[in-house]
Amino acid sequence: MARSGAGGAAVRVVAFGGGHGLAAALRGLRRAADEIDLDITAIVTVGDDGGSSGRLLAERDALLPVGDLRQALSALACDDPVRLRTAQLMQHRFAGDDSLAGHPVGNLLLLGLLEMLGDPVHALEHAAAMVGAQGRVLPMARHAVGIEADVRDADPARPGEVVTVRGQHAVAVALGHVEAVRISPPDPPTCPEAIEAIRAADWLLFGPGSWYTSVLPHLLVPGLAEAIVASPASRLVTLNLATDNETSGLSAADHLAALGWYLPGLRVDTVLADAKWVGEPEPVHQAAESLGARLILAPLAVADGSPRHDPESLGVALVPVLGAAR
Amino acid sequence: MARSGAGGAAVRVVAFGGGHGLAAALRGLRRAADEIDLDITAIVTVGDDGGSSGRLLAERDALLPVGDLRQALSALACDDPVRLRTAQLMQHRFAGDDSLAGHPVGNLLLLGLLEMLGDPVHALEHAAAMVGAQGRVLPMARHAVGIEADVRDADPARPGEVVTVRGQHAVAVALGHVEAVRISPPDPPTCPEAIEAIRAADWLLFGPGSWYTSVLPHLLVPGLAEAIVASPASRLVTLNLATDNETSGLSAADHLAALGWYLPGLRVDTVLADAKWVGEPEPVHQAAESLGARLILAPLAVADGSPRHDPESLGVALVPVLGAAR
Repeated sequence: MARSGAGGAAVRVVAFGGGHGLAAALRGLRRAADEIDLDITAIVTVGDDGGSSGRLLAERDALLPVGDLRQALSALACDDPVRLRTAQLMQHRFAGDDSLAGHPVGNLLLLGLLEMLGDPVHALEHAAAMVGAQGRVLPMARHAVGIEADVRDADPARPGEVVTVRGQHAVAVALGHVEAVRISPPDPPTCPEAIEAIRAADWLLFGPGSWYTSVLPHLLVPGLAEAIVASPASRLVTLNLATDNETSGLSAADHLAALGWYLPGLRVDTVLADAKWVGEPEPVHQAAESLGARLILAPLAVADGSPRHDPESLGVALVPVLGAAR
Repeated sequence: MARSGAGGAAVRVVAFGGGHGLAAALRGLRRAADEIDLDITAIVTVGDDGGSSGRLLAERDALLPVGDLRQALSALACDDPVRLRTAQLMQHRFAGDDSLAGHPVGNLLLLGLLEMLGDPVHALEHAAAMVGAQGRVLPMARHAVGIEADVRDADPARPGEVVTVRGQHAVAVALGHVEAVRISPPDPPTCPEAIEAIRAADWLLFGPGSWYTSVLPHLLVPGLAEAIVASPASRLVTLNLATDNETSGLSAADHLAALGWYLPGLRVDTVLADAKWVGEPEPVHQAAESLGARLILAPLAVADGSPRHDPESLGVALVPVLGAAR
């Protein structure tokens, strides 16, 4: 956090998402923070029901799925050697085939903190201090939330049929076309700290990430949605670099349209996308405009050609956006 | 670490032991460090085969039993709120009846560090940094060591018979009279850092703790025994406040005699004991003298009458001993 923003004070950024997409956004913000003074808050999806997080929910009735929270903390870890190694330890996944196998150390550490302290915000504050996080990590809701979707053509043997797919993992890997996404319970309790961060933000960042299971769920939480619509903050949407199972068949413009569909009051100021992956830019321009946004095209992908955001490139692209006079 | 020792530099103390006894000694040293500048190294038994540590050895082939190492780290944790809470987290034991139940978070964290870094000294250095340890924690050997004992009258139904009891936990809870203790393998590899700490020490501290399974095992490791005998350091033995299963029938004087029996070359300078628990002092005086030591009697127990060392009282008793001109 070197130079201050245009106003002299830190630019307050709230990033919504989960998994690798949010981690990429946070790493980009870390890079941007070399040039602008940023105050970063990550608000993380809590719908994960697969892998280590899912096992801890099922076997220990964990308060929250911890994997996405761990990833966000890791992305925000500071460069001090001790804290960086603690972040590496949190990411270290036990190998083998016994009962510990598959659990990253950080998931067990977060589980222990949740059990010991009870309050998810206190638990995440402590974990953030352990890795010297350059920002704050908060959960989308105060307890685990279920994600379900109506999916058309999920079963190739029954074309045209719409079935309800339950669970973030199942939705993320479902074939077919997602027609509607819901959360359960429909109105989970939120953290006052998250609402306050949204209220006080200069920028709200959406994406990149699994669109239906990591990016959109925040818009389905009534408490967050209300705060997002009411916030005076500018809004940036960073588009993905490719589609995945849950968004197969969706164009970049469709991704933007989905945001407006799930939160009709959502105004967007800037859409950031990689020209190479957007293809024909005109439909994306139009979709951005219909949300009130301008489209910025910039190289964002890693050099090896895989559809992953490069933190350095993303950071470079974020600096002029977030650093512009407010 | 407030005032420096008599020589101006820190007084270098090496404490041998394991479990609650070593933790009590380290807490006493922490208290003494308020008045004398101490450089503390704990050299920890690695024979534990019970509980969480035993399960991690059996199920994951852990390099070392981690429980006693965790306890020592916790006892050395600094008072900074973040590091102190990290130490509390390390001590937090998962409840319930699933596969995580019974494991303290710190055991899993140390297991992860051992797997990630390979080297036990590096793993313990990092864990020490995480809790801001006011001292260093090293293992007695570079891998787990088995403890076995020849025990007479272990089976009440077969009086007089001597049986071999294998495993630290089994020895610790065995009925009867321990006639001989061995480690397996008989000559485990040691850490050069431990040997160097013993060589450079001003004081070597033995006890309190489970005499056969936590205090004596160090004397059975040839590399450590040789370094202990050769070290120019003064030596302090702190006696226990009561006997336990493995030492039932042993007097305080017998405890001292056992040290000389298992390491004939051991010279001792000071024996610290609680008058209330020693009983008739003359035999203890004589046993101390036969090791070359003077006996110091001081109140060391917690106020509730249970046979546990009070860190405050132990610290107060240690100050004049460790702070004396060398």
